[in-house]
Amino acid sequence: MRPLQNTAHDMSNIKAYMQEIGIAARAASRLMAQADTATKNRALIAIADAILDNRASLLAENAKDVASAKVHGLDAASIDRLTLTERTLREIAEGLRQLAALPDLIGAISDLSYRPSGIQVGKMRVPLGVIGIIYESRPDVTADAAGLCLKSGNAAILRGGSEAIHSNQAIAACVHAGLRAAGLPESAVQVVNTTDRAAVGELITMKDYVDVIVPRGGKGLIERITSEARIPVIKHLHGVCHVYIDDAADLDKAIRIADNAKTHRYGVCNAMETLLVNANIAARVLPPLCQIYLDKGVELRGDEAARQLVAGMNTATIDDWHTEYLAPILSVRVVADLDAAIAHIATYGSQHTDSIVTENYSRAMRFLREVDSSSVMVNASTRFADGFEYGLGAEIGISTDKIHARGPVGLEGLTSQKYIVLGNGQIRV
Amino acid sequence: MRPLQNTAHDMSNIKAYMQEIGIAARAASRLMAQADTATKNRALIAIADAILDNRASLLAENAKDVASAKVHGLDAASIDRLTLTERTLREIAEGLRQLAALPDLIGAISDLSYRPSGIQVGKMRVPLGVIGIIYESRPDVTADAAGLCLKSGNAAILRGGSEAIHSNQAIAACVHAGLRAAGLPESAVQVVNTTDRAAVGELITMKDYVDVIVPRGGKGLIERITSEARIPVIKHLHGVCHVYIDDAADLDKAIRIADNAKTHRYGVCNAMETLLVNANIAARVLPPLCQIYLDKGVELRGDEAARQLVAGMNTATIDDWHTEYLAPILSVRVVADLDAAIAHIATYGSQHTDSIVTENYSRAMRFLREVDSSSVMVNASTRFADGFEYGLGAEIGISTDKIHARGPVGLEGLTSQKYIVLGNGQIRV
Repeated sequence: MRPLQNTAHDMSNIKAYMQEIGIAARAASRLMAQADTATKNRALIAIADAILDNRASLLAENAKDVASAKVHGLDAASIDRLTLTERTLREIAEGLRQLAALPDLIGAISDLSYRPSGIQVGKMRVPLGVIGIIYESRPDVTADAAGLCLKSGNAAILRGGSEAIHSNQAIAACVHAGLRAAGLPESAVQVVNTTDRAAVGELITMKDYVDVIVPRGGKGLIERITSEARIPVIKHLHGVCHVYIDDAADLDKAIRIADNAKTHRYGVCNAMETLLVNANIAARVLPPLCQIYLDKGVELRGDEAARQLVAGMNTATIDDWHTEYLAPILSVRVVADLDAAIAHIATYGSQHTDSIVTENYSRAMRFLREVDSSSVMVNASTRFADGFEYGLGAEIGISTDKIHARGPVGLEGLTSQKYIVLGNGQIRV
Repeated sequence: MRPLQNTAHDMSNIKAYMQEIGIAARAASRLMAQADTATKNRALIAIADAILDNRASLLAENAKDVASAKVHGLDAASIDRLTLTERTLREIAEGLRQLAALPDLIGAISDLSYRPSGIQVGKMRVPLGVIGIIYESRPDVTADAAGLCLKSGNAAILRGGSEAIHSNQAIAACVHAGLRAAGLPESAVQVVNTTDRAAVGELITMKDYVDVIVPRGGKGLIERITSEARIPVIKHLHGVCHVYIDDAADLDKAIRIADNAKTHRYGVCNAMETLLVNANIAARVLPPLCQIYLDKGVELRGDEAARQLVAGMNTATIDDWHTEYLAPILSVRVVADLDAAIAHIATYGSQHTDSIVTENYSRAMRFLREVDSSSVMVNASTRFADGFEYGLGAEIGISTDKIHARGPVGLEGLTSQKYIVLGNGQIRV
C-alpha cells in the first residue's frame, strides 16, 4: 500500500487512494467468502505467531506513537489505551488463537425443508462482504477487528486513530504475513495508511465497495459517522442503563446487583447510570445501599423522595436522567410502581441494558416483554451485557440499533443469510 | 387525521402534520408491542369484516380515483393496479384472515441457555417499532401492509401513490374500525392523507419516530428514497436473474426450467433476464429451447456463439447483460465453464436470484456457495423466489440488501431480537 502521509491534504489523491483500497477489498471479499475453515484458522494462528515474533519492532513502532502523543499533550487515559506492552501483545495473540478455535459459521445451512411444490428451501450463512471499521487510537483493536473479519469470511478496511498510525501499520504487516502464510490475499485486511480525515469521509460513502460500517469510539464520532454514512452502520451510541428495584425484590440481591452494576467499573457502557427504587421499599433499601456508594466515593444525585432518605445526596435535574456519566456518579429516583419505572426507562433510557430486581413473577415477565432495550435482565447486574459473558466467543461491539444486530455483536453479526433452493427440475405452475 | 390536501404546498404545515403522525405512531408502537396474540388476530378479522361490509363505499371511492386517473392519462397497467373489484376486496379480506391464522412471532424466546456465571442468556423476538411504507397507487397494498405490520406488533405509517388517495382513505377507515373493535389504538396504522411529495421527504428522515422504511415500487422511486433516507431502508432494487445450464445438466430439466423462468410471467422481478449456457452443451440445448421462446414471441439477444446456433437472434450488447427487461426479451450468452458463469453473474447480476441446472454434485455445491445472491437455486425455476413459495406465509417484499433481511421478507423481517438475561442475584466478578 502506498504511504500517503506526505500528501495528506491532496483530497483528490485521498479519494483515488480509498477507491483503490475499496476495489482491492471487494475482490478479496470474494476469495474470503470461499476460503475454507482450515485456511482461515491457519491465517489466524500465523498472525498470532507473527505478532509474538515481531514483539521488539511492534513495541519500537508503538513507542514512536506514544512519544508523539505525549508531545501533542494527549490525556493519560488515551495514552494508556495507545500503549502496547509485552503483556498486551501476548493477549492479542491469545485472542487470535481463541478465534481460530471457534466454530466457523460460514456455509452453515439451516431450516432446510420441503415445500408443497417439491423444492427444498433453506438458508445458508454468508459473510457480509467488506466491513469498514473506524476506531480510536487503540492498536489492539486493529488485531482484534482483523481477526473477527477474517474468521467471518469478510474483507476488512480498518481506519484507526491517527495517533496510532505507526503501531497500526506494524500490526498490519503481521496480519499480512499471516494471510500470506495461509495463501489468502493480503488485501483481505487493509489498514488505511493516512491520517487525513478525508479518508473516513470516503470510506463511509463508498457504497460499491463497502457493505457495512462499524464505528467504535465516543458518541461524537459515532453521531458524525451515522449522519454522513451512505452505507449501513452497526453502532452503539451510548448506554444510559437502569436497575429497577421492585418492592418484591430480595433485599440482599437488590443491594448486591445495584452495587455491582454501578461500581464494578465506571467507564463502561453497561454500567448503571440511574437507579430506580419502588417507593414501598425505598426506606429499607436506599440507606444501606447509598452508604456503600458513598463509601466508594460515588456522587449521588437524587429526586426529592430519595434525598429525604439519604444524607449527602445532591439534587438530580432532568439532565441527569438523560446522562451517561461513565464516572462515579449515580442518579437515583423513587418511583410509584413498575409502570412508572418502565415509563422512566422509555423516556430517558438509551435502549442499551436495563435490569429489574424482583421475586414477583408477573412483574419480571412484564419487564422482560415491555422494556425495549437491546438487553433486558431480571435479577442480574447490567455489567453482564457483553459478548464474552453471553457466550458469543468474541465481540466487535454492542449495537443499540434494532435493524440487523442488537446487543453484543459477535461473529454472527458480521454475517447474513441467503436463501438456497434445492430442486429436481421444478417449475412454477 | 386532518385532511391536508388543500394546503398541499405549505411545506411547514406538511412537516408539522408528519411530525404529529410520527409522535402518534411512536406512542401506538409501544401499545402494539404489548398487544397479545388474540387481540391482534381479532383486529385482523374485524378489518376483513369491515372491508367486506363496506364494499359499496370502497368501490365508490375507488371509482373516483380511477376516473381521475383516466382524465390524467395514466397508462392501462397502472389503472389496472389501481382498480378495486368485488373480487379484489374478497382477496384482501381473505389475506387478512390468513394473517390472523399465522403464528405470532412476537415474544418468542430462543436459545436460552446457562452461562458459567450462572445467568441464563437467550433472545426474545420483538417488533421493530414504527414501519414507514412507501408504495405506488395500489390500494390492495394498503390493506396488506397494514395487516403485516399489525400482526408483527408494529405501528405503520403508510404512504401510497397519490392517484389512490380516495381508495386508501376508505381502506384506512376500515382498518381503524377493526383496530377500534379490538381495543387497539387507531394510530397503530396511519395512512398519510396528502398527495404532497414533501410528506415522503419528512417520513424518510423522521429518525425519532420511524425505525425502518420499506419502499415498494419502481427502481427510480427506490433509488431516490435510499439516497435521501436517514433511516434504515429494507429494499429491493431490481432483479437481473440468471439461469446457468451446465454441461452436466439434464436436458429436459434445463429446457423446462429455462422456459418457465422466462415465460411464466414477464413483468416480475424473479423472471430470468439472462440465460447462460455451457459451450459444450449449447448446440444441443439452444436450438430447441430458443424455438420455444421464439414461438412464444420472446425476442432473443445473444452473443456471437449463441447467434451461430440460433436463427433470428439479435446481437446482445454489454448493456443487455445489465438490463432487467421485465418484458418478453431474453439475453443469451455461451460461457466456457462454471467459473465464467459465476464471474458473469458477479459482474452483471443484481444479487437477486440465480439458478444452476446440473446433475454434477461439486458444481452444484460451488454454485450454491459462491454465487452471492439473495436466493441461489439448483435445478429449480427462479420464479420460486417468493415469500409464499418459501413458506413465509406472507411477504412485504424481496430484499436485495445484505443487512437485516435478505430475499423474500415476511413477518420475521419486520421484527428484531433483544437479549434477555434471567438471573438469581448474579453479579460480575
